Amino acid sequence: MEEKIIKAIQDDYPDDFSWCYGCGRLNKEGHQFRTGWQGEKTVTIYTPEPKHTAIPGFVYGGLMASLIDCHGTGSAALALHRKNGHEAGDGSEPPRFVTASLKVDFLNPTPQDVPLKAIGTLQEIHPKKWKVETEVFSHDTLCARGEVVAVVMPDTFMKKA
Amino acid sequence: MEEKIIKAIQDDYPDDFSWCYGCGRLNKEGHQFRTGWQGEKTVTIYTPEPKHTAIPGFVYGGLMASLIDCHGTGSAALALHRKNGHEAGDGSEPPRFVTASLKVDFLNPTPQDVPLKAIGTLQEIHPKKWKVETEVFSHDTLCARGEVVAVVMPDTFMKKA
Repeated sequence: MEEKIIKAIQDDYPDDFSWCYGCGRLNKEGHQFRTGWQGEKTVTIYTPEPKHTAIPGFVYGGLMASLIDCHGTGSAALALHRKNGHEAGDGSEPPRFVTASLKVDFLNPTPQDVPLKAIGTLQEIHPKKWKVETEVFSHDTLCARGEVVAVVMPDTFMKKA
Repeated sequence: MEEKIIKAIQDDYPDDFSWCYGCGRLNKEGHQFRTGWQGEKTVTIYTPEPKHTAIPGFVYGGLMASLIDCHGTGSAALALHRKNGHEAGDGSEPPRFVTASLKVDFLNPTPQDVPLKAIGTLQEIHPKKWKVETEVFSHDTLCARGEVVAVVMPDTFMKKA
């Protein structure tokens, strides 16, 4: 049975910020990644679609990068929200983050038709900036390792939205 | 008028290796990135679709990462092909690369509805390994800077395809 995230931070984003192709719950054409706590780690689970292929049988690296990217911003939002005294699902509006930088090391070919589990470890490096180290597993195989530096969404984005 | 790549390396990949969600010409649901030479630089041009949004008005970072990823492997294929005495479109089969690592620094919000131009600079770091430094422009604005280390596709991929 596939694990599921019960309380995802993305479920609490205001509608205007829920159109992300990676993790927006309102973007029906997107991946709709959902990120929640699992103990002190953050978790996103996603099964790539058949079209998300690199070569037949293996998952597209850009999809792995997208998963690590949105898992990073979602994890940072979870962490700052918790620091502010809140949890996903408690009715309060979470902070939103954007990605400053993204790194991915592709360690093993990622087979298709298997749920991927991204597990994040968080580190606050500034009041508005978090580093999220992520490992992406296919069953027990570590397929990719990623790092995202996520920053609180700046006003330049807010104004346009 | 939007620039176009005339001779793209992806046009020459064998059918079995043309299903990549990022740059496979046979993956009709994918981005179908196409990469060619422009002088000593490599270029990929792509206009994100409306669904590829981060928040309304701005391009999704995962799409930028995908563009940099496939631009990197395509650029490495162009470079090794040329080193081997060939050019895209000359009827010979090009080498294929996979991504070992990907880094992206997001420098400026990327507006939607504008063609993105990824420009790559190549460095051979090993007979089977190339580093591709990429800058992604929206008009004259540098929106992202990326680095891909691409390696010749290993047998583990070949066997399965």
